[in-house]
Amino acid sequence: MTLTRTAHDAPALDGTTAAAVLARCAELDAFSSSSRGLERVYLTPEHAAANARAAHWMREAGLRTWQDAAGNVWGRREGREPGLPALVLGSHLDTVPDAGSYDGMLGVVMAIAVVERLARGGRDRVAELPFALEVVGFSDEEGARFGTALLGSKAVAGLWDEADWDLRDRTGTTLYRAFREFGLDPALVHDAARPPEGIVGYLEAHIEQGPFLEAADASLGYVTTIAGARRFRLSVIGEARHAGGTPYPRRRDALVGASEAIATIERIGRGGDGIATVGRIEVWPGAVNVIPGRADFSLDLRAETDEERDALWLRMQAEIGDACTARGLRFEHVEHHEAAAAPCAPWLQEAVVEGIRSTGDAAPMALWSRAGHDAMAMASVADIGMLFVRCFDGISHHPGEDVREVDVARGLDAFEQTVLAVARRVEEA
Amino acid sequence: MTLTRTAHDAPALDGTTAAAVLARCAELDAFSSSSRGLERVYLTPEHAAANARAAHWMREAGLRTWQDAAGNVWGRREGREPGLPALVLGSHLDTVPDAGSYDGMLGVVMAIAVVERLARGGRDRVAELPFALEVVGFSDEEGARFGTALLGSKAVAGLWDEADWDLRDRTGTTLYRAFREFGLDPALVHDAARPPEGIVGYLEAHIEQGPFLEAADASLGYVTTIAGARRFRLSVIGEARHAGGTPYPRRRDALVGASEAIATIERIGRGGDGIATVGRIEVWPGAVNVIPGRADFSLDLRAETDEERDALWLRMQAEIGDACTARGLRFEHVEHHEAAAAPCAPWLQEAVVEGIRSTGDAAPMALWSRAGHDAMAMASVADIGMLFVRCFDGISHHPGEDVREVDVARGLDAFEQTVLAVARRVEEA
Repeated sequence: MTLTRTAHDAPALDGTTAAAVLARCAELDAFSSSSRGLERVYLTPEHAAANARAAHWMREAGLRTWQDAAGNVWGRREGREPGLPALVLGSHLDTVPDAGSYDGMLGVVMAIAVVERLARGGRDRVAELPFALEVVGFSDEEGARFGTALLGSKAVAGLWDEADWDLRDRTGTTLYRAFREFGLDPALVHDAARPPEGIVGYLEAHIEQGPFLEAADASLGYVTTIAGARRFRLSVIGEARHAGGTPYPRRRDALVGASEAIATIERIGRGGDGIATVGRIEVWPGAVNVIPGRADFSLDLRAETDEERDALWLRMQAEIGDACTARGLRFEHVEHHEAAAAPCAPWLQEAVVEGIRSTGDAAPMALWSRAGHDAMAMASVADIGMLFVRCFDGISHHPGEDVREVDVARGLDAFEQTVLAVARRVEEA
Repeated sequence: MTLTRTAHDAPALDGTTAAAVLARCAELDAFSSSSRGLERVYLTPEHAAANARAAHWMREAGLRTWQDAAGNVWGRREGREPGLPALVLGSHLDTVPDAGSYDGMLGVVMAIAVVERLARGGRDRVAELPFALEVVGFSDEEGARFGTALLGSKAVAGLWDEADWDLRDRTGTTLYRAFREFGLDPALVHDAARPPEGIVGYLEAHIEQGPFLEAADASLGYVTTIAGARRFRLSVIGEARHAGGTPYPRRRDALVGASEAIATIERIGRGGDGIATVGRIEVWPGAVNVIPGRADFSLDLRAETDEERDALWLRMQAEIGDACTARGLRFEHVEHHEAAAAPCAPWLQEAVVEGIRSTGDAAPMALWSRAGHDAMAMASVADIGMLFVRCFDGISHHPGEDVREVDVARGLDAFEQTVLAVARRVEEA
C-alpha cells in the first residue's frame, strides 16, 4: 500500500455523500488481521494501515494530519484565524474480533465528510468558524487486545495509567512492548494529552448499537448520557483432577462453579436495570478428561446510573462468593476498567437536537448510551455531545452490523448543521 | 540428549527396585512441552524423547526394541523358544496438560522392571516362560492433542479409524500432518496392528486414579471391568451482539446457554450412578464486550455399565435441548469417542489376585475402573487384566499425583508373580 497522494497532487474525491461514506467504511474492512472476518486491534499493522488510509482521506478534505504519541490519527483545519481552540469530531478505528464495518469507523468517516462538506461549493465555511475543526480516529476504544478499553482516548484526555504498561495480550506481549513494536515511544505517551483550553467540545457520531431508534422508526437520536461500565476479570479456583477417577464428593470443579456464576450474573442483570455480559472464558488445564482447576472469565457491567450498576455488582459478588464457598471453590475478582457515567453537555445536546431537527425530525429521540464511547474519556477534558445513527436490528460487534444509506445521509446533514449550531453558540457565548 | 548407551556397551542399571521405578518416572518428567508443568502429547519431540528413553531402559532389561507405525514403543524378550505368542505388559507414555508423573508412565516402567526382575540372580526365568514377554509404551492414551483417546492402542488393536486423519489439534495441524512431521508414514499405520493369535494376554499396571484403595488402606487392587466413556463436542449457538447495546429480550447468549448446560450435566451426573465432566470450553468471538455467539465445550461421560451411561446422556441431551430452545439457542453435539465397557478376563483377574495375594494381602480389593485405559482397546485383540496401585488422595491428571514407594514395591512383587501365575495357567491350558 502506498499513500503518497495528497490533496495537492490529486483531484479530491468527493467523500461527502452517504454512498461515499459507506464505501469508505467498506474499504477499511480490508485492514484486518483475520481473513475470515474483520478484526483490527491496537498497535498492529492493520491499525497502522487504517490510520494511513484515514489520514489520506483527511488530507483530501483539506486537513493537516498527524499521528499522536498514542497511535491516534488526527487532522486539523484552521477556523477564521490560525491557532483557535478546536471543535473535535471523531470516533475510533479499532474493532472487536469478527466485527462489523461501522462501530467507530462510521463516526470517523462521517467527521471527515462533514469537514469536506463545510468547505465545498466555493464557500469555505470552515474558514468562517470561531474555532478550528479537528477530526480524530481513536486507536483503541474496544480494548479487544489488552482488555482495557479507551486506551487511545484516555491518552488524549490525560488519563493514561502507568500501570497499564504491564497489560498483556493473549500472546503475552505487554502494552509497553507493543508500543515499541508499533514505532511509538512509551516515554512520550503523555505528549498525546490535549489541554482542555485547546478544545471547544467533542462531538461523536456513532451507530446506536441498540434497537430503540429502529423501534421508534427514527433515523437519528441524541445522547443524554453514556452509562459507565465496570469490567472485571473473575476467577473461580478449584482443583484439577482426573475426570473419571474422582467421585462427585471429591470434586472441586472450577468450571461448574463458573457456570453457576455466569447464570447468577445473568439472573441478577436481567432482574435489575442493568446489562451484564460474560464475553470470555478460559479454563485450565483445558483437557477433555480433566476436571478444570481454574476458570477465568470476564464481566462487563453497565447500568443507567453508577449507583444501580454498583448495587448490581455487590449482589453478584455476594451470591457468587457464597455459591463458590459452598462448593469448596475460591472466588476472586480484579477490576480492570471503571468508567463513571458521562453526561453529555446540555448545550451540545441542544446543538445536536438542532442538527437533527434540520433533517425534518421535529422531535428528536433522546437516548442514553448503553455502550461505552471515546466521548467518555474525552468528557474529562471537554464538553461532549453524541449523535446516534439507526442501525439494523440493533446488531453490533458482529459482521451483520448494518446501516441504511438514507440514515447516513440524514446523519451527515444533521452533523454538519450541528457544527454550525455549535458555532452560533460559541459566537453568542 | 544422547542415548548411545546400550545393554551391550554399558553395565545394566538395576531398574528392578521401587526406588529405581520412581526415579525413572521422575526422569521422564523432563520430556515436557511446558517449562511450568508436565505436558507430553502425541507426535511431538517430547513423545519421541520419551520413547527413546523407554527403549533405552528396555534394552538394558534385555529386550529387543522397536517403534511401531503408530509411534508406540515396544520391547520383546523371547520365552522358552523364539517366536512364541507374547504376554504384553504395558501402559502409556503420553500425558494430559499439567500432568502428574505416574498416570501411564508407572505402568510402562514397572513392566520393564518386571522383565528385568524375572531375569536376574543367575536364573533367566523369562527363558523358561511358555510365551514371549513384550513391553509396550503406548503413544496416545489421553487424547490430549487431538481430542480422541487411545489412538496408540487402537492402532495396535486394528481399530484405526480413517476418519481420524482429519482431526486437528489446537493449532490446526491435522493428525495426518502430525504423523508425517513425526517421521511416520500414515499409509503404513495398519502395520501397527497385532493379530490376536500373537498375543497371550495384555496386563497393565496403573495408579488407581481414585480414592478407594486409600480409603480401604490397601496397596493394590485388581480390576473387574473398565467403564466405557463417551465423549462429545457440544455446541450452543446463539448470536454475537454488542454487550452494552443489546437488551436482555434481544439476547441469545451462547455462553449463558452453555453455563446452564454445564450445570445440568453436573446435576444429572451427580444424581445418577455416573461421572460427567466438562473439561474444555471455548467461546466466540471471545471479547469482553461482545455477547458470545457460540460456545463449544466437551463432555466426558462414564458409568459402571454402558446402559446407565447411555441413559444419563439421553436425559442430559433432552434437558439441555429444551433449555436452549427456550432461550432461542441451538444445541448441537458430535460424538467423537465411544468405548464400550471392557471387562477383564476372569482368568487374568485370577492371576492378578494371585499376584496380589503373594504380597500378603489375603483378600485383594476388586475395583471397576472409572478411568479409561489402553486395555480397553487391547480387549479387542486380547484378554486383558489390570493391577491398580494406590495413589495419594485419589489425585490424578494433576502435578500432585503421587504414589508411595512401599506400594510400588508391593506392586512390582505382585506384577512379577502375576506373570508367573499367567504362565502356570498357559501351561495348564
